[in-house]
Amino acid sequence: MLLIGNGRLLSLVPDKPYQEDGAVAIDGDLIVAVGPTAELKARYPAAGWLDARGMVIMPGMINTHMHLYSTFARGMALKDPPPTNFLEILQRLWWRLDKALTLEDVYYSALLPLIDCIKSGTTTILDHHASPYAVSGSLEMIARAALETGVRTCLAYEVSDRDDEEIMRQGIAENIAAIKKYRGKEGLISATFGLHASLTLSDATLEACREAEGEVGSGFHIHVAEGIQDVEDALAKSGKRVVERLAVNGILGPNTIAAHCVHVTDREITILKETGTMVVHNPESNMGNAVGCAPVSDMLAAGVPVGLGTDGYTSDMFESLKTANVLRKFVSGDPGAGWVEVPAMAFENNRRIAGRFFPHPLGRLEPGAYADVILVDYQAPTPLGGDNWFGHLLFGFNGGLVDTTVIGGKVLMQGRRLLHLDEAAIAARARELAAKVWERF
Amino acid sequence: MLLIGNGRLLSLVPDKPYQEDGAVAIDGDLIVAVGPTAELKARYPAAGWLDARGMVIMPGMINTHMHLYSTFARGMALKDPPPTNFLEILQRLWWRLDKALTLEDVYYSALLPLIDCIKSGTTTILDHHASPYAVSGSLEMIARAALETGVRTCLAYEVSDRDDEEIMRQGIAENIAAIKKYRGKEGLISATFGLHASLTLSDATLEACREAEGEVGSGFHIHVAEGIQDVEDALAKSGKRVVERLAVNGILGPNTIAAHCVHVTDREITILKETGTMVVHNPESNMGNAVGCAPVSDMLAAGVPVGLGTDGYTSDMFESLKTANVLRKFVSGDPGAGWVEVPAMAFENNRRIAGRFFPHPLGRLEPGAYADVILVDYQAPTPLGGDNWFGHLLFGFNGGLVDTTVIGGKVLMQGRRLLHLDEAAIAARARELAAKVWERF
Repeated sequence: MLLIGNGRLLSLVPDKPYQEDGAVAIDGDLIVAVGPTAELKARYPAAGWLDARGMVIMPGMINTHMHLYSTFARGMALKDPPPTNFLEILQRLWWRLDKALTLEDVYYSALLPLIDCIKSGTTTILDHHASPYAVSGSLEMIARAALETGVRTCLAYEVSDRDDEEIMRQGIAENIAAIKKYRGKEGLISATFGLHASLTLSDATLEACREAEGEVGSGFHIHVAEGIQDVEDALAKSGKRVVERLAVNGILGPNTIAAHCVHVTDREITILKETGTMVVHNPESNMGNAVGCAPVSDMLAAGVPVGLGTDGYTSDMFESLKTANVLRKFVSGDPGAGWVEVPAMAFENNRRIAGRFFPHPLGRLEPGAYADVILVDYQAPTPLGGDNWFGHLLFGFNGGLVDTTVIGGKVLMQGRRLLHLDEAAIAARARELAAKVWERF
Repeated sequence: MLLIGNGRLLSLVPDKPYQEDGAVAIDGDLIVAVGPTAELKARYPAAGWLDARGMVIMPGMINTHMHLYSTFARGMALKDPPPTNFLEILQRLWWRLDKALTLEDVYYSALLPLIDCIKSGTTTILDHHASPYAVSGSLEMIARAALETGVRTCLAYEVSDRDDEEIMRQGIAENIAAIKKYRGKEGLISATFGLHASLTLSDATLEACREAEGEVGSGFHIHVAEGIQDVEDALAKSGKRVVERLAVNGILGPNTIAAHCVHVTDREITILKETGTMVVHNPESNMGNAVGCAPVSDMLAAGVPVGLGTDGYTSDMFESLKTANVLRKFVSGDPGAGWVEVPAMAFENNRRIAGRFFPHPLGRLEPGAYADVILVDYQAPTPLGGDNWFGHLLFGFNGGLVDTTVIGGKVLMQGRRLLHLDEAAIAARARELAAKVWERF
């Protein structure tokens, strides 16, 4: 057993989100008790002791839409003219990069952002992977990287018709194998069924995916209406908009994640709500790709569970949360916007969304939840309490203040030192591999 | 003498911005040499040695528009209904907060964000201060906080007609005293002449300020057209837009900083260019206040030196730089936007702008420049070089990776430990003071 205490406890449990002094008792990978430090010390005298020394003890951050494989794009020169729209970004960057990836590239390009997750306090990610010329075994490579780094990860392979039918079938098989091996099991890894996007999926392929998914009942993780080109394509293919087309093809539902949903109508929002589909907003990526801004307020108001992700733009969910906040205000023209929506997305909805994929609850410090805990070395310049913790988090916290990261009860970083990984050596090998990927790109 | 070496050197000197191995030799508060580690070690065998152990050695970040005094707003509840526009933000938040500040509050509310500057690698700030019921001596309080923390700071007091003429006159005197004491002198501190904004300044007060400034030739640091209300007010007062009104009143010029410039026309951009006025863009703040987005591309294209600040939203210029990047892309609808503009603002123009206020150059690692140096513990996952350093910085660097901060040759933080400050004790006293400010608010 491990006791983490003597900290300011931000449990994120609704009726008592914050207490001035608190501790978390951990047995195996789960939290067994939360309470005042002295009380838990008395109750668990034999437990190992991790002194938070006044730091904030809080649940690790959750990233509900991530692309680990995007790592090797950092600093890469394109071979085509700069993309001017979303489809060109796919064609000139991502669809060239992912085809250059080998299984070893997949492994190393996953390790570094997973390390960044630990360093910035992100303890759970829902990954969405593509490597069309190295499909089979790719999710196992990511699982290996996740297990070695220790970050809770839900796998998915992006099935698409971008390549030949064989590669499409490999993608289906890769998802199904991972789901059967990991979904609903104890441990750090889960899996769901990945699909790229409506614009790269024929009706026949959607039908094949739905049929395969029927065996396992996993739901899907798919990009939805990220760029307007996805909408144009769906209209051309089917006379329907993206959400409508996916609904008709049986892709939506309470276990499905529709990432982005930038270009959705009120009617489509109603479909998302009625099917119970989960949505993930990725503010930095959407801004950076110049695709527009998702109607987050409308979706939340309609009762759609909208979470928050980074889309691989960063591993740091504090960064995503800050951008989500200013984007809400900027787009709405209302400086008071975002105060309810952003914590709802980053905490409550991400907790619910990620919770679909793992057998125990996460995102709160409470008995029975995963022991995914971070210590934030935050020296509050003003009073911090249960009624204003989010203001402190928004303006005072950042990934660099995360001192200690614990996932599933294992202490992965302490005093900002990674306890079990040689980041420099991993990065050195990654640079060698990335240089070769850039040649093949 | 101090030698910092064995690092990857990002000098930001245009013809050779990056070298794989480099060192910086420091004598007093200036850099005396930059070159390969072995060469400088041989040249300065008696110098103290700071081993960068492969970290990135780069110039400290510069923040050209900061409000240290805003610290005590963090987590504060307003007493009025939530502001719905920029003027209400001023009236219901900042103009109530700043009136509650005593000189001790000014000192403590400056210390914490200055510490955050050190922790996030910001080595120079241009501050803009207001405390209407504690004007006299306030800039000395900030100077004291800057000297004790060790952060290079340019002072300014925001003169305005918000209160009575006596307070307005105190503001003028406070600026002039600081300018006479610090401007152009050796050391960490400089000063310029602060003005709040056109909407709180009568023609008579502008005339009084211009007259006082004539003695010292400092130029001004003023908010310009941040909210549309500033434009409406200027039109009502003078029949002129903000930049036009300030130009007619002799406020603009090559030593003047016009912060924000969100609502400026092409004609006003021409005036900014013709007068040589410097502009500072504050992307996070502008988004967060829902005031709109400055025409950054147009101003840069017109030859206006536009720099980058945080407006007190954060102390972390990496955060501001990332937001500036995605905002450029989002607003222009062009995913290729920002690659030239953002580094131009954050590095070249901030260097030029801050350089007006200090006797030696800054923002580059080159002989003669201030020894304001940071070590970034960045493990590049892909090759890093002179042609792609900005991509790495944008997607890989963050304030939390800053390991060591040196300002004016003094090592202030090493291994993320502050060497000379007790942050916890300072924060504890700040919380006591902030609680009292919140009562008086």
